[in-house]
Amino acid sequence: MVGWLRRGRTRARGVSRPVRSEAVEATRVELAELAPDPQAYLGQLGYLTIVLFESLGRGATAAPTASGKSRFGRVAAEVLGIHEAVLGELRDLGVDPAEAMEPYRARLDDFQRRTRGDDWHEILMTCYLASGFLLDVYAGLAAGLPTALGERMSALLADDDAEDLLVEELREQLDGNPRLAARLAMWGRRLVGDILLVARSALSIDGRFPPEERVEPVFTELIAAHTRRMDALGLTA
Amino acid sequence: MVGWLRRGRTRARGVSRPVRSEAVEATRVELAELAPDPQAYLGQLGYLTIVLFESLGRGATAAPTASGKSRFGRVAAEVLGIHEAVLGELRDLGVDPAEAMEPYRARLDDFQRRTRGDDWHEILMTCYLASGFLLDVYAGLAAGLPTALGERMSALLADDDAEDLLVEELREQLDGNPRLAARLAMWGRRLVGDILLVARSALSIDGRFPPEERVEPVFTELIAAHTRRMDALGLTA
Repeated sequence: MVGWLRRGRTRARGVSRPVRSEAVEATRVELAELAPDPQAYLGQLGYLTIVLFESLGRGATAAPTASGKSRFGRVAAEVLGIHEAVLGELRDLGVDPAEAMEPYRARLDDFQRRTRGDDWHEILMTCYLASGFLLDVYAGLAAGLPTALGERMSALLADDDAEDLLVEELREQLDGNPRLAARLAMWGRRLVGDILLVARSALSIDGRFPPEERVEPVFTELIAAHTRRMDALGLTA
Repeated sequence: MVGWLRRGRTRARGVSRPVRSEAVEATRVELAELAPDPQAYLGQLGYLTIVLFESLGRGATAAPTASGKSRFGRVAAEVLGIHEAVLGELRDLGVDPAEAMEPYRARLDDFQRRTRGDDWHEILMTCYLASGFLLDVYAGLAAGLPTALGERMSALLADDDAEDLLVEELREQLDGNPRLAARLAMWGRRLVGDILLVARSALSIDGRFPPEERVEPVFTELIAAHTRRMDALGLTA
């Protein structure tokens, strides 16, 4: 999910660095120190990708055109690719994937309920912002995993570009529709609170939250990345 | 989606041939004669796989366990693989995929609405029966396409086994639950009518239905395959 953001930024502001790599680079050291153990990392990411898949399926159902539906399908295929790879890593660790994901189910199901959105535009926005923000977090945390696993996770989370399709779709919808822009800017602001809570919990280990002073700089940068994602749509964060 | 049916049959009745290949073999000649032109074939199959993806997403949302959700995700990944390949074939023909799918949208959306199901068990059943039955039809019709395309489609539709996971899930749920078995047997009977309408429309070209005497033997065999699928769950069709 890198190329599209680069293109987005180029068009929107003439800046050529992708949001993902920019955010991950700026937070790599801080996030590495806050990485949970491999099982917790993989369990959370495994369940998160399920939740994203569900949202994308709902987006496809709500999309009014065949091409819109296909775009959601492409993004879902990528998210499911990450999901399968994560499950494979858990099995290689000798851990049952369902058991590893279970502790994160209630929180992420709740996140999903709170951020469902009332219509296709809001679902689209949720998919775009939540997957962007949260996969940034896991890409950054990968630096704190055991080396080989961390490298595989970095590659897995960096090497895709299907969300470009969501941005394209959003831009097409927003073009010449200031009323929708105002509504989606509001929805984006509402989403960021819920997304931050999930991101925060990704940093905790066994429910113990890390101290604020270590978390603060990470969040500052992640929110900056979120703002750049809104900018890419011409919306105010 | 072959291996699982083979295993299903073996366990259920000691018969070792998969439902898909059995049905496709028996109807190959008849279906080949009823194949629409490549664009119509691909357009329909493209939109059908979107609709199946949407159902699988809904199934994942409704599934009460992480492992159930992951199973839906695996099947969805396979269905989306078919979808992407079909879109690629359309592009190779110089056809815009969205335009090719558009004529089939209303009918398949309607099918989807009628067969949504009220809960997770019914969604699971819809995914199992609709994908099994309808992908049988398209696997059979592939024999009537231009040779190279037909071979690629046959391979694409034969070479996967993720629906095994849906059968496993259904068996786990049905085990020792006669009330659920009765309800799902009824749901299966209700579904087959709607599925047959979609299958019937796959044979038509530009809205002209083929004569009944050519369609009859095909449907007899497809319904027999459907019955074997119900058998595999220990349910009466």
